[in-house]
Amino acid sequence: MDTLFSNITAVTMIDKLPVIYGAYVGVTDGKISYISQQPPQEQAERVIDGRGMVLMPGMVNCHTHLPMSALRGYGDDHALADWLNNYIFPREDKWDSRAIRAATLLGIAECLRFGTTSVTDMYYFSDDICQCVAESGIKGNISRCVTVFEEDYCFDKHVPSQELVALHEKWHGYDNGRIQVEASIHAEYTSHDKVWHGIAEYAINNGLGMQVHVSETKDEQESCLERYGLTPAQILDVSHVWDTRAVAAHCVWLTDEDMELFARRGVTAVHCPNSNLKLASGIAPIKKMIDKGMNVALGTDGPSSSNNTDLFEPMKLAVLLSNGTTYDPVSITAQEALKMATVNGAKAQGRENECGVIAPGMDADLIMLDFTQPHLIPCHNPISNLVYAASGHDVKLTMVRGKVLYEDGNFLTIDLQKVLQEFHDYVLPLMFGGEGEANA
Amino acid sequence: MDTLFSNITAVTMIDKLPVIYGAYVGVTDGKISYISQQPPQEQAERVIDGRGMVLMPGMVNCHTHLPMSALRGYGDDHALADWLNNYIFPREDKWDSRAIRAATLLGIAECLRFGTTSVTDMYYFSDDICQCVAESGIKGNISRCVTVFEEDYCFDKHVPSQELVALHEKWHGYDNGRIQVEASIHAEYTSHDKVWHGIAEYAINNGLGMQVHVSETKDEQESCLERYGLTPAQILDVSHVWDTRAVAAHCVWLTDEDMELFARRGVTAVHCPNSNLKLASGIAPIKKMIDKGMNVALGTDGPSSSNNTDLFEPMKLAVLLSNGTTYDPVSITAQEALKMATVNGAKAQGRENECGVIAPGMDADLIMLDFTQPHLIPCHNPISNLVYAASGHDVKLTMVRGKVLYEDGNFLTIDLQKVLQEFHDYVLPLMFGGEGEANA
Repeated sequence: MDTLFSNITAVTMIDKLPVIYGAYVGVTDGKISYISQQPPQEQAERVIDGRGMVLMPGMVNCHTHLPMSALRGYGDDHALADWLNNYIFPREDKWDSRAIRAATLLGIAECLRFGTTSVTDMYYFSDDICQCVAESGIKGNISRCVTVFEEDYCFDKHVPSQELVALHEKWHGYDNGRIQVEASIHAEYTSHDKVWHGIAEYAINNGLGMQVHVSETKDEQESCLERYGLTPAQILDVSHVWDTRAVAAHCVWLTDEDMELFARRGVTAVHCPNSNLKLASGIAPIKKMIDKGMNVALGTDGPSSSNNTDLFEPMKLAVLLSNGTTYDPVSITAQEALKMATVNGAKAQGRENECGVIAPGMDADLIMLDFTQPHLIPCHNPISNLVYAASGHDVKLTMVRGKVLYEDGNFLTIDLQKVLQEFHDYVLPLMFGGEGEANA
Repeated sequence: MDTLFSNITAVTMIDKLPVIYGAYVGVTDGKISYISQQPPQEQAERVIDGRGMVLMPGMVNCHTHLPMSALRGYGDDHALADWLNNYIFPREDKWDSRAIRAATLLGIAECLRFGTTSVTDMYYFSDDICQCVAESGIKGNISRCVTVFEEDYCFDKHVPSQELVALHEKWHGYDNGRIQVEASIHAEYTSHDKVWHGIAEYAINNGLGMQVHVSETKDEQESCLERYGLTPAQILDVSHVWDTRAVAAHCVWLTDEDMELFARRGVTAVHCPNSNLKLASGIAPIKKMIDKGMNVALGTDGPSSSNNTDLFEPMKLAVLLSNGTTYDPVSITAQEALKMATVNGAKAQGRENECGVIAPGMDADLIMLDFTQPHLIPCHNPISNLVYAASGHDVKLTMVRGKVLYEDGNFLTIDLQKVLQEFHDYVLPLMFGGEGEANA
């Protein structure tokens, strides 16, 4: 046995035994190998004293844009068009590989620090992003986001789709499946049916997942209806976009029919409440989606719109917003929100047989939280404390496949000082010149 | 000079100079005595290296019930009446002085850890609460919450009002005003006009502030209209409740006329978004309140309904909810939210000439945050990072009147281990018998 968590409160996410008090959880060769209230006979190489601690499955962030860490807070509090056109887009034009890598490593460090063990990322420079995921030890479903306006688009000849092919060939299945490459259509309004057909066909033929922004704003929903007489969910369905495992980010303005369609097609809605509120998109009706049988997972969205990647925030907001807008204080339970952040996220990533619960044979993607701090005492119910009182800051240890990646302020696979130096010396001068950054 | 923060980013909350980079902020005899970008000539007893740190005014939590820390998460995810009648009220019946003191000290420790330097508390056993505020060094506006249903109520003879008198005589102005005793009417629906007149008269005659729950739920608003033909804000106005400095907690269902009344009367709305959402009360329209000229401050509400006292959460939610419900991404700015948590809170407490900004002569109620962590890098704008990306967990040091009360995990005035032992040995057995608590 490599690692033994001893005498710990284990939140398993298994419905029939959600919490095991005084648990012993053993890890061998990257997998969970032992769970009991009795200590194992076998010796462990490392024993972690779990008294006062809570162990839970690592969290799955199903929608983000990691390199946007470099744009965190930049141009905040400006109207959307002004923000995008005068702040975000001009800076994004300046990216190069080297800057992307530093920004991605910073983003991954933040994820690990806050207890995320697997991340779904949609951006460009995806080869560099995969390289960072590979180095850092986190799990990643990585897509090259496709935006194409030209009418003469042809899958075989267009840069974004060719990048997807290269990415697929180089990275898909890397390290025994730790990296999964996925296809991505940025959104209905940033491309057209030739693109949708081409990308969908490639994803289906190659068993790749799919990532799309769907019905984020009212304007997106209405202008799509005007163009096609169909909603984004419906028009993309015509092009078979949902014929593969897919995540639809945001889903703020889905109609009832859209929800039924997504439930039938097994499309996961990725609820990103922080981003949807901050950018004034609205509040996604997740209670209704759940009632209609949809899988709902959670995302932080990129650090320029949310503005951190602490998945505990959207997890708490998922319950709070649902209660507050349905006027039902039990519209969604803490247990359901915790599932969105773990089990449902793993399912969205196609990793449901691999992680998302604490059970023998699953990958040891685990996080340990310190429950000895004033705001987590008393602990009448660990699940309630996790969802309503805790934060990613309470994470003390983050482990992926049995390997500790973060512990007590230290990153074991990322040289954070080097990344910060790189930000100071290269990323910020490249992207912002002399201005925009005060205190890197 | 007692303390010097050197080379720090100071977020002053002064409109004309909101951020001073590379600042030197000196503290002498509990007051801010020096602010400059040049180091002072004078030596300081302690120099705190502020590189990578942000200094801001301590936060003011304008509505909580500190001892309810003992009930954190207890009975969560039950419908409101079930939760109150079968979980909260039966446990509250068991309180005694000793238990209240331990629970209050735990609550104060949590506040200090998250950067709150002044707290407005409404509960009973208020003498014990004042004792804890006195010991801990935090500032407090403390009220004995009055609930009276009997028709023969007379101010001079009734226990709650006599407790207010005793509290006033014993604690009001303690330690040069660190404790302010305030009057409190629990709510319109838990008393009647004899009570309101009596309490209001006492508050006005003695220059005490007032704390009331107002228009928290739709049902409260509607049943009051049915009873009196007036809203809670209006009917309490008839009894002169707003003729003294007052805070109205929640204000979810205020009408436009209520807002205009409160603006005229100088009543502060205390926005408690976490609690209002979780308990399904709704979303307070704070943008409208601000536009109508009201003072809006922030509260966490008690730890049994929110479920922690990290004021960074409602500060962020204030902006997010306002944007998301008005569909305007600049409905409220980060700077305005930060003001709610500091300047506006100080005003609500009658402490606007004492704290809430970093300026010479003000009390040194200061908090220092560590901005070297991944989620706060880069820092294009410290105010944006404070509101959208930071958390109370980033607070490294909390100082009230120049005295450090919390630093790097250590509480200087509260023996946390002793408090936790007391919880284990006394509070939890008293209140919950053998059950309800798993991991204290």
